Amino acid sequence: MSKKPLILVTNDDGITAPGLRTLIGIMNEIGEVIVVAPDSPQSAMGHAVTVNSTLFVESIKIDDGPQVEYSCSGTPADCVKLAKNEILKRLPDLCVSGINHGSNSSINVIYSGTMSAAIEAGLEGIPAIGFSLLDYSWNANFEATKEYIRTITENVLENGLHEGVVLNVNFPKLDKKDIKGIKICRQAKANWKEEFDKRKNPQGRDYYWLTGKFVNLDPGTDTDEWALKNKYVSIVPVQADLTAYNFLKDLNSWKLND
Amino acid sequence: MSKKPLILVTNDDGITAPGLRTLIGIMNEIGEVIVVAPDSPQSAMGHAVTVNSTLFVESIKIDDGPQVEYSCSGTPADCVKLAKNEILKRLPDLCVSGINHGSNSSINVIYSGTMSAAIEAGLEGIPAIGFSLLDYSWNANFEATKEYIRTITENVLENGLHEGVVLNVNFPKLDKKDIKGIKICRQAKANWKEEFDKRKNPQGRDYYWLTGKFVNLDPGTDTDEWALKNKYVSIVPVQADLTAYNFLKDLNSWKLND
Repeated sequence: MSKKPLILVTNDDGITAPGLRTLIGIMNEIGEVIVVAPDSPQSAMGHAVTVNSTLFVESIKIDDGPQVEYSCSGTPADCVKLAKNEILKRLPDLCVSGINHGSNSSINVIYSGTMSAAIEAGLEGIPAIGFSLLDYSWNANFEATKEYIRTITENVLENGLHEGVVLNVNFPKLDKKDIKGIKICRQAKANWKEEFDKRKNPQGRDYYWLTGKFVNLDPGTDTDEWALKNKYVSIVPVQADLTAYNFLKDLNSWKLND
Repeated sequence: MSKKPLILVTNDDGITAPGLRTLIGIMNEIGEVIVVAPDSPQSAMGHAVTVNSTLFVESIKIDDGPQVEYSCSGTPADCVKLAKNEILKRLPDLCVSGINHGSNSSINVIYSGTMSAAIEAGLEGIPAIGFSLLDYSWNANFEATKEYIRTITENVLENGLHEGVVLNVNFPKLDKKDIKGIKICRQAKANWKEEFDKRKNPQGRDYYWLTGKFVNLDPGTDTDEWALKNKYVSIVPVQADLTAYNFLKDLNSWKLND
């Protein structure tokens, strides 16, 4: 690419999150960067969009650098829609989302605001990547992810992605010297075993906090969970077609039209 | 099934929605019904879950009938998690979600609260179906859907579903006599062409309403969009594995570990 690529950067932890600031720093060295990110944390928002409320967008500058920044009152998917339709002068060459503070591997992809932004970009015809580090803390150390993010981004810019396919990249919480490399994976079959923490509010009314434990149900060695556990960076190509093709034949044998 | 099946009913339009009330009526004739539904509309919530806020659940009775009802302050996915973990004494035999006021065909599935409840149930090992009518109005006429819903539900109870697969059922907005039958489909490739309605608030600050037009990009005659347009009820089997398997080989040929 002779001209500098136009790169849209977003996330779900909010515009001040260290993971986003790290991603902006890396992208500033690769292309022209426009940031459109939520003005507050939007974790676990899934693919929510704001249809029953208003959306505000503000030009803002969080820290130094050539990037142009906007904060948005909506969800990550809203940010991508607004960026494409109201802020950017042309379709960006790439959308990157993250770096998320916490895992978006396996089934977490369907709850993930980070990945919903990437998937939304994919639907809009923009090649997209979601990056996540397996460390939920605000002060997570993103140092080890930098060179990998650059390599993966440059590969996407050079090779392109299939229409509607985006990449879900997760990093193990390890020093760079301990990471063994990158593995291309499928999404592990897993779920969350919820544990609701039941309490009483000062007025005596019951309420709950949702907590839970991630359970990997998949013995495969070709999954993202396996890769991360074995010290690899995982990349899962992700699509928005949820059709369970393997079940179509069974379903066609049912007597639904008798 | 000799014993009455235990059926969890939920939705995303809220516990008072006529679509939900219709679904409860049908399910009361098939099994023992427990309703756990949002206390307010949760459309376009995608697969959001409530992790940064508290959840309230109230025993409630909206109208007559043998069903047991609870309203929940969370999202549709929260309702399913709470029902399974805190309300139901055993894993239900079925979870039905809807009847949604409006389409969840094609790409709408990823934005849909109705389908997120069904997918969440599927992840929890509960066979599940989301029902939606292509009519957004609160006073939509659900009459034509009733016999189809009964047939599809009885088939699911009898045949079962593959693990993790749930059904996305959409009804055309037609009188029963004009519906041609049921088609098993794949999810059509489509997206939304957004149109942001930009306004100024009384303080002079710009804001947006998200609106848009649904665009079917898929010429296939095996899709849900084709079926609905041609007066059929569409059923798409849906899964939570988003891996783009077709792209794995390409991705493996990239030089990521050099």
